Amino acid sequence: MSLITLLTDFGTSDYFVGAMKGAILAVHPTAHIVDLTHDIPAFDIEAGAFTLAAATETFPAGTIHLAVVDPGVGSSRRPLIVAAGGHLFVGPDNGLFGYVYERDSECRVFHLTNGEYRRPALSATFHGRDLFAPIAGALARGVKPERLGELITNQVRLQHAAPARTTGDATLAAAVIHIDRFGNCVTNITPRDLTTPAAAGALSLLIGGREISSFRRFYADATENRRGELFAIWGSAGYLEIAADCDSAAQLLGAQRGQLVTVRSSLPKA
Amino acid sequence: MSLITLLTDFGTSDYFVGAMKGAILAVHPTAHIVDLTHDIPAFDIEAGAFTLAAATETFPAGTIHLAVVDPGVGSSRRPLIVAAGGHLFVGPDNGLFGYVYERDSECRVFHLTNGEYRRPALSATFHGRDLFAPIAGALARGVKPERLGELITNQVRLQHAAPARTTGDATLAAAVIHIDRFGNCVTNITPRDLTTPAAAGALSLLIGGREISSFRRFYADATENRRGELFAIWGSAGYLEIAADCDSAAQLLGAQRGQLVTVRSSLPKA
Amino acid sequence: MSLITLLTDFGTSDYFVGAMKGAILAVHPTAHIVDLTHDIPAFDIEAGAFTLAAATETFPAGTIHLAVVDPGVGSSRRPLIVAAGGHLFVGPDNGLFGYVYERDSECRVFHLTNGEYRRPALSATFHGRDLFAPIAGALARGVKPERLGELITNQVRLQHAAPARTTGDATLAAAVIHIDRFGNCVTNITPRDLTTPAAAGALSLLIGGREISSFRRFYADATENRRGELFAIWGSAGYLEIAADCDSAAQLLGAQRGQLVTVRSSLPKA
Repeated sequence: MSLITLLTDFGTSDYFVGAMKGAILAVHPTAHIVDLTHDIPAFDIEAGAFTLAAATETFPAGTIHLAVVDPGVGSSRRPLIVAAGGHLFVGPDNGLFGYVYERDSECRVFHLTNGEYRRPALSATFHGRDLFAPIAGALARGVKPERLGELITNQVRLQHAAPARTTGDATLAAAVIHIDRFGNCVTNITPRDLTTPAAAGALSLLIGGREISSFRRFYADATENRRGELFAIWGSAGYLEIAADCDSAAQLLGAQRGQLVTVRSSLPKA
Repeated sequence: MSLITLLTDFGTSDYFVGAMKGAILAVHPTAHIVDLTHDIPAFDIEAGAFTLAAATETFPAGTIHLAVVDPGVGSSRRPLIVAAGGHLFVGPDNGLFGYVYERDSECRVFHLTNGEYRRPALSATFHGRDLFAPIAGALARGVKPERLGELITNQVRLQHAAPARTTGDATLAAAVIHIDRFGNCVTNITPRDLTTPAAAGALSLLIGGREISSFRRFYADATENRRGELFAIWGSAGYLEIAADCDSAAQLLGAQRGQLVTVRSSLPKA
Repeated sequence: MSLITLLTDFGTSDYFVGAMKGAILAVHPTAHIVDLTHDIPAFDIEAGAFTLAAATETFPAGTIHLAVVDPGVGSSRRPLIVAAGGHLFVGPDNGLFGYVYERDSECRVFHLTNGEYRRPALSATFHGRDLFAPIAGALARGVKPERLGELITNQVRLQHAAPARTTGDATLAAAVIHIDRFGNCVTNITPRDLTTPAAAGALSLLIGGREISSFRRFYADATENRRGELFAIWGSAGYLEIAADCDSAAQLLGAQRGQLVTVRSSLPKA
């Protein structure tokens, strides 16, 4: 297996992506390189983390994912290799793998300390090419993460990677983690966070003073005009979303990434 | 052979393209994935159909083309596999393969009914990943279209896929099917529609009250200043185009996609 | 080895890139195609040349680079194959390989004259697909450049590919060859142009009446507020850059591509 995916905030008009691909192939010329996206907003770790999690979920076991959204390049932030769910991830220790950690509680995180694969002149600004890409190539050649670094457990996590449950309480403190181009508010709630199936209707979400208790299977409700009606829906990335019929939920709610969403999994009788 | 090309209107900044690639590779990890474009204007089936036809023509026999411009996702529009010209196409039944049908009158169209390859949780909004991608992977592994669906002949066609010939008349009712970034008006006229070679000059095009009867081999005429002169030319996509010397033919003509172009293949003597 | 990289100014929304990929794969279906970028500004040969040099440097020996920024398509400009540094380059003779020539003084340049691989109907406007792509495929199959063309030495060079040294003088006449998105001014100065190591501080650059004599290893200086301070730095593309602390050097200097940069490698004692 030598599938290597790439996710960066480099854009596609500079030489950066090409140079990084070359640095992988210099180590392992038969790697099959697959672009996920290079259009993560510059330095936006949270957007990169969300997109990485949603884009990589479908890949076969053994895939190597090289992810570089790295505002701290050149500083002391650690380079990582993460083994999770049968995949390997390579990139900076800044939260970019926050949802990956959440998805596999057995994941192992290695601080990359072995310098033997890095390119001779390690530039201060382009670790994607000089440090991370050769490591992705080495992993594709079968080099074990154990040989390249040391197990750690204090990796940087994302603040809103998963909802928090208050002990002895039926409520979850969840958050909006992504707002898509239609204005749908993606929350960090996954099916495993709910004891009652959301589809059963026994769900109430509180966001910015509004309560949302209707649930749908489809975005548009063809039967009548309900434009602007807010509802919850399982989105295709695997998270619960707050959407509005033919409208932007984010705009209607004034919602922002990071905003609190309180979940009561059973509604109080009025 | 396991070449799989991708054409979508997903853009490149979301997780959609990556997730679709993963879903292909989960079924057939050694497939070689080739991006055609993900920048078809959202929901623009005609633009997708034109670009698909022009981009895929050069590929070797056996290539699989996965095309998703799918405003009707989640509705009852049928999923298709099309076998045409030695290639296989996978995508929705909405006209996206309109020019493909035209190019190979022997093509076979299958309504994809076999659900065994689809991903376990078929989302209502992301058939590119959950329904079409695994089918592309299965075809690349050698599964036959016959095993995956049933032959149909009532597939959705494009209104302007080819010019119409009036019986007993020398004229063709053609149409503008694409306006490129230079303002050239690409028509649906191919060499096989003309009895007289266009280069012979015995050609007259009527569009919006204007008659165009000059024909060129090159866009710019170096010999003298003829800026704005309208002419016909064979474009690199294989269709006859209406162009203007150093100017936008679309703007000069007020032309739009779908607009009628009448062709008289021999000019009346004045 | 059958790695083929692509660099063009075609953009990614048309059928051009896809059709070119198909034309490569029609000749050599097992080639592994790697996109460098398709977002070179239209017809900007200098930008293409810079990006090509910086993006291809990391690739393993034997890689084939297909580069098409070709304002002269259809005219008499020559098609080329360049063998340099263990790589092969295919594209038009217009300066696009200017930095490649500079990097390997032993490079061999072939005027592509053998027409056997070109596509049957060579379009006047799309040599990327009809002329260059099949040649890249043929080279990937092992066809030798010697069989495809004739050695030349009068290829078109770039005006500012390298600094010029005045005989009997310690100064270099260098130039700005690229301005990146942060406003850093990339010069054509490489380490081999300097007799004294730049880091030693014994370097003075004159640009537009300003003298720059400070040198840094990192773009940002964390110790104090020096916003707008101009300095020289080795950039990740391997060239000396003129940068400004947290600011745009290009804007502060009013600098443009092609602008003269005079280098004195040892500073006069004040």
